Amino acid sequence: MAANIIDGKAFAATVREKVAGHVARLKEENDIIPGLAVVLVGEDPASQVYVRSKGKQTVEVGMNSYEHKMEADTSEEDLLAVINGLNNDPAVHGILVQLPLPDHLNEDLIINSIAPEKDVDGFHISNVGLLGTGQKSMVPCTPLGCLMMLRDYHGSLSGMDAVVIGRSNIVGKPMAQLLLGDSCTVTIAHSRTKDLPEVVRRADIVVAAVGRPEMVPGDWIKEGATVIDVGINRIPAPEKGEGKMKLVGDADFASCSERAGAITPVPGGVGPMTIACLLANTVTACCRANGLAEPEGLTA
Amino acid sequence: MAANIIDGKAFAATVREKVAGHVARLKEENDIIPGLAVVLVGEDPASQVYVRSKGKQTVEVGMNSYEHKMEADTSEEDLLAVINGLNNDPAVHGILVQLPLPDHLNEDLIINSIAPEKDVDGFHISNVGLLGTGQKSMVPCTPLGCLMMLRDYHGSLSGMDAVVIGRSNIVGKPMAQLLLGDSCTVTIAHSRTKDLPEVVRRADIVVAAVGRPEMVPGDWIKEGATVIDVGINRIPAPEKGEGKMKLVGDADFASCSERAGAITPVPGGVGPMTIACLLANTVTACCRANGLAEPEGLTA
Repeated sequence: MAANIIDGKAFAATVREKVAGHVARLKEENDIIPGLAVVLVGEDPASQVYVRSKGKQTVEVGMNSYEHKMEADTSEEDLLAVINGLNNDPAVHGILVQLPLPDHLNEDLIINSIAPEKDVDGFHISNVGLLGTGQKSMVPCTPLGCLMMLRDYHGSLSGMDAVVIGRSNIVGKPMAQLLLGDSCTVTIAHSRTKDLPEVVRRADIVVAAVGRPEMVPGDWIKEGATVIDVGINRIPAPEKGEGKMKLVGDADFASCSERAGAITPVPGGVGPMTIACLLANTVTACCRANGLAEPEGLTA
Repeated sequence: MAANIIDGKAFAATVREKVAGHVARLKEENDIIPGLAVVLVGEDPASQVYVRSKGKQTVEVGMNSYEHKMEADTSEEDLLAVINGLNNDPAVHGILVQLPLPDHLNEDLIINSIAPEKDVDGFHISNVGLLGTGQKSMVPCTPLGCLMMLRDYHGSLSGMDAVVIGRSNIVGKPMAQLLLGDSCTVTIAHSRTKDLPEVVRRADIVVAAVGRPEMVPGDWIKEGATVIDVGINRIPAPEKGEGKMKLVGDADFASCSERAGAITPVPGGVGPMTIACLLANTVTACCRANGLAEPEGLTA
């Protein structure tokens, strides 16, 4: 059986389209333009690419994009002052501090200085606590994207056996909370798990979020299960020519797609959903800030 | 095989003894007396019993106990003012608002008005968020007690398969976070779980926290597994005479103790650990507030 391919790129386009619709409505009915501020400290090339891509997509859906680029040796005090300014700026509904930060800055302290209701990355401990107790929160973008795709494909997830491989604060743990919120029976597996193949074989839903290229082979997958592959790993691709590289996920796509009922590819699966969900979070935050009904289907 | 009985009553006594030792040391070396404030709104008889018991044990370990009893019709404003006073009182290191609160009071709002570092119940969203991201926090007392007993019995829990039955914010969810922090492979099961017997049969550690009398029968338990029974259910006991009642757990003790390697009884298992852990949290909070090294073995 060949798995259905869950086309994250196409799905992300529909999410952006929905967001654009809400942005247009907010302008027309309420004279409000949602605004997303991104703070980048230093010149990490990958971070620069992400920030440029976020800014571009923010503008494309009709929102205002504010970029704050700061020197690599920026002091904690100066960075906190910038964040404080954004916290108090009514034109800014979402604030994102691009990670990783230079070593001399305390990431936890910086993230927790963002006003929780503007924390569109969902990393503030208040948002983690709200999500962890089933309350309204800002939900981290990557797991939110995975949840949206799962809901779209399956409808209700209630009662399904889900296994999350990886227990990071950014993906694994919030993913587990979201699946639990949708009434899955959730197992969190990780590097200390004794018999990972057996744990994965039980699952109706497998979310792989480890960052190890092609570590999940097809024979770990239950026939018909849904595989959500969060990994984006760059590995040598000699078949493309000397020195060439390619992107692969945490699942071995070729063998997994023979057993799974549905699978997200890499690239073109979870990846494009992350920025789409950042835009979704910003429009949600904007509606909440203005006491307006928040859009349906754009958060958990 | 007859299971080892994990004697929570005796273990709680050793925890209280450790706490008393730290309290004595804090007095002698630092001239500090840890203080726990309990706020009780209304006259719920069960709550009155709990509060009395907490106050008694607080004094027995050498700490100061402050009780604030307020009328059932206390306004939110008045309650918030009392909490604010306690937040700013340097003699108070732990604050506990006895739940449930009367219906006209917003529990989330009240709990989140407690200074997180004094929130010895561990229910403030900041503490949930800190626990949920593996940072130092105040840990909810009942799951902390379960964790202490498991560590004491097993040593390292790393790699063990743990199943938590129940997904409450007070027990199930923080329990899962704690077991994950100790590197168990953790499954959270609940009322929507499809095949609960099968899920429980895989587990090396079963934590039952549902509140349904004797719902886990022995034949769900893997030979040699450890059963931690959080349930405290009052049911009729006609064998003791007409109209008599008895306490039972969520596990059927008779059949589970034939299969388990170890089991906590009800009463005398998890129950006594909860107040012991409240005292432990208070001494931990006191040390943190005074910039002193916190006691080992009294938190997660």
